[in-house]
Amino acid sequence: MKRPPIKWELVAKDGEARCGLLHTRRGVIETPVFMPVGTLGTVKGTRFEALESAELDARIILGNTYHLWLRPGAETIAACGGLHRFIGWERALLTDSGGFQVFSLGALRKVCEEGTEFRSHVDGSLRFLSPEVSMQVQAALASDIVMAFDECAPGEASHEVARESMLLTARWAERSRKSFNVLQNEGSTQQEQKAGESESSQQTAGGRGNEQRSSSVLPPAPASCFLSFKSALRAPHSALELSGEQALFGIIQGATHLDLRRESLARTVEIGFEGYALGGLSVGEEKRVMYQVVAETAPLMPVNSPRYLMGVGTPEDLIECVARGLDMFDCVLPTRNGRTGQAFTSRGKLNVKNAQWTRDMRPLDENCACMVCRRHTRAYLRHLYLTGEMLASILLTHHNLFFFLDTMRRVRQAIRSGDFTRFRREFLEGVNSGVA
Amino acid sequence: MKRPPIKWELVAKDGEARCGLLHTRRGVIETPVFMPVGTLGTVKGTRFEALESAELDARIILGNTYHLWLRPGAETIAACGGLHRFIGWERALLTDSGGFQVFSLGALRKVCEEGTEFRSHVDGSLRFLSPEVSMQVQAALASDIVMAFDECAPGEASHEVARESMLLTARWAERSRKSFNVLQNEGSTQQEQKAGESESSQQTAGGRGNEQRSSSVLPPAPASCFLSFKSALRAPHSALELSGEQALFGIIQGATHLDLRRESLARTVEIGFEGYALGGLSVGEEKRVMYQVVAETAPLMPVNSPRYLMGVGTPEDLIECVARGLDMFDCVLPTRNGRTGQAFTSRGKLNVKNAQWTRDMRPLDENCACMVCRRHTRAYLRHLYLTGEMLASILLTHHNLFFFLDTMRRVRQAIRSGDFTRFRREFLEGVNSGVA
Repeated sequence: MKRPPIKWELVAKDGEARCGLLHTRRGVIETPVFMPVGTLGTVKGTRFEALESAELDARIILGNTYHLWLRPGAETIAACGGLHRFIGWERALLTDSGGFQVFSLGALRKVCEEGTEFRSHVDGSLRFLSPEVSMQVQAALASDIVMAFDECAPGEASHEVARESMLLTARWAERSRKSFNVLQNEGSTQQEQKAGESESSQQTAGGRGNEQRSSSVLPPAPASCFLSFKSALRAPHSALELSGEQALFGIIQGATHLDLRRESLARTVEIGFEGYALGGLSVGEEKRVMYQVVAETAPLMPVNSPRYLMGVGTPEDLIECVARGLDMFDCVLPTRNGRTGQAFTSRGKLNVKNAQWTRDMRPLDENCACMVCRRHTRAYLRHLYLTGEMLASILLTHHNLFFFLDTMRRVRQAIRSGDFTRFRREFLEGVNSGVA
Repeated sequence: MKRPPIKWELVAKDGEARCGLLHTRRGVIETPVFMPVGTLGTVKGTRFEALESAELDARIILGNTYHLWLRPGAETIAACGGLHRFIGWERALLTDSGGFQVFSLGALRKVCEEGTEFRSHVDGSLRFLSPEVSMQVQAALASDIVMAFDECAPGEASHEVARESMLLTARWAERSRKSFNVLQNEGSTQQEQKAGESESSQQTAGGRGNEQRSSSVLPPAPASCFLSFKSALRAPHSALELSGEQALFGIIQGATHLDLRRESLARTVEIGFEGYALGGLSVGEEKRVMYQVVAETAPLMPVNSPRYLMGVGTPEDLIECVARGLDMFDCVLPTRNGRTGQAFTSRGKLNVKNAQWTRDMRPLDENCACMVCRRHTRAYLRHLYLTGEMLASILLTHHNLFFFLDTMRRVRQAIRSGDFTRFRREFLEGVNSGVA
């Protein structure tokens, strides 16, 4: 009998804030955790050696299913042995389902019961993404944590629109779970066959959904859009060989409507997942509304599973949502802002372009211990940014990632020592004080 | 009495190939040496930590006077304490004179006896560069090795054109030496005053040119173009405080005409410099012609000074010119080609874009020990390049710099062990065999 693909254990609690350990096949991840985004298989502007260094020590990064599916394609990654081997990263990987990226395409997408039709932003080709396709692609990527395929309603969606979308997400969650379980079983069966075992195990990695696996019949997807993994399976290091060990997270939707969030949560938990995410936040709603949704929903989420807030947010958001009981976060802010000349500091954001830094020999953040702040000045970083030098993005990204990851280290320390309330107050005072 | 700013000593010789040690105030540099180019104060796409790592171990990098003069400006860099402090690099720095960059502007420049008028490629403003301005800017940059201001004739220049240009370079070399010496003396006088010494030293860092210093009167430069360093001198870490320790190299011109090269050499040595460079090569002439100029000129260059071939070249060029007696090289090839998807390997150039690498799990170079080759595949690098990811440039640049720097390590080892002939033959066979 297999051990579960992931396991989360509580280490300390301070109010609603939780400190825990997420055990994965690729190492232990302390939570609350910030996960840098590696859209196309690279955390933009950052070498893996830096991510692994004691300074950053990122234990898990993200890959985007939508982007990787389009380029270089799931078959290529599968043929290269899965995303870890393809990119050269041995720590944990989480892949999203592609649902949010497709939502971001706006008018370019068409949602139906079966899935979502959209045009590729790369070449305009017509594509079709469904729970089954997303699970197949994520199996090929062989990420450690797979996200269910969901539909994301806009932040300002009416109750009616949001409910329809939430129910579709629930039906897709069930299809995701079933499809995932079949793929995991294929993977583990293949592994067992390779290992020369004659006895076929019915045990897969999933949660309650496993029970429904044997009766499931996958709804057909459009033949033209479906991926053929035959070549991938023939490849020497097929990603699917590992896929028996993936974990699947469900996603709670419902926009800003608290009753819908509760209903979505109940339906998602009913299906059963290894972890639970809040989706559809930070998509246009007011910040206080987001905090309220988190405050009302998080305490109802299963206590023994990791709770993941997708795509959020600023350092303040992270701390506010940790305070409301969430464990995992991802956001493009540190990397994207790094490329646009914005540094996150203990006194708020610093715009590196400002003329006032022309001869300023101070580091970005005088309270920061990162390599960039130990070595380089605002004057130099401004010069690099204004002359379009790549090093500006590289250094600002490094500093920003350090700020996010180090803040989470301090958050965990504060929770463990029962000091989170004071930490939170002082941190927020700091970032609101303004850069001088 | 001051010690000389640099000192070169011969360690071993194999044929014309020389292995030596270049002692500078910022560390010892083994020669033959390849110097990565840091145009605007950054070796593009590379962190300084990587340059300092045991893997790359670049002991000296270049800065471009022309580029740094335009952005961020010499006064800004001086106010920040010189180029080392501005960029955060404590190892040696060599700055060129700006002459070659201005030559590259082509029709945008106008050469007269006084200097060169040109339009900035950044904002189109009219600028004037002369030996005196170049020496002032390089004093402000406080580089360890300063290059004389020269005029570069095209590779195909006629004897008449090339001679006129070479004679102008010789006159500018004399003005460079004089101006440099005055600036060095200002710097050292200021230093001595700061140190509370009452005795004024006439000893400066330069070579024979020092003797002429007292009688020199600087020709006036156009007032509108001249730099005011008063503010720099008032700055807390004025670069000029250090400038008493700079070394000045002379540049030998004469295009492809061997008699002019010899005459230029004699005139340059007559003035006296701490090192000698061959300029105006790899500017359109045939490769065999360049090798011939080097072969005929290098053995006539002073034996106890470093010999520097400016702006050259491919790994093959480096080895061929080491074989002809040269010691120092710089070139943008490893960094520029890194950004355009070309890798230098032991079997020649590899174009990372090629479709044949789509699923190729081999490193760029199977004989390479660099971090990129130990970790990443052609398939991944191709994907990064095709999706426009910064990491493609970062990794290819790192690999290319490693290839150049490691080749020079092996060159030095081969010379020391009297094995250079075999090394050279095998290296050239390798790079000509083609990537498979």
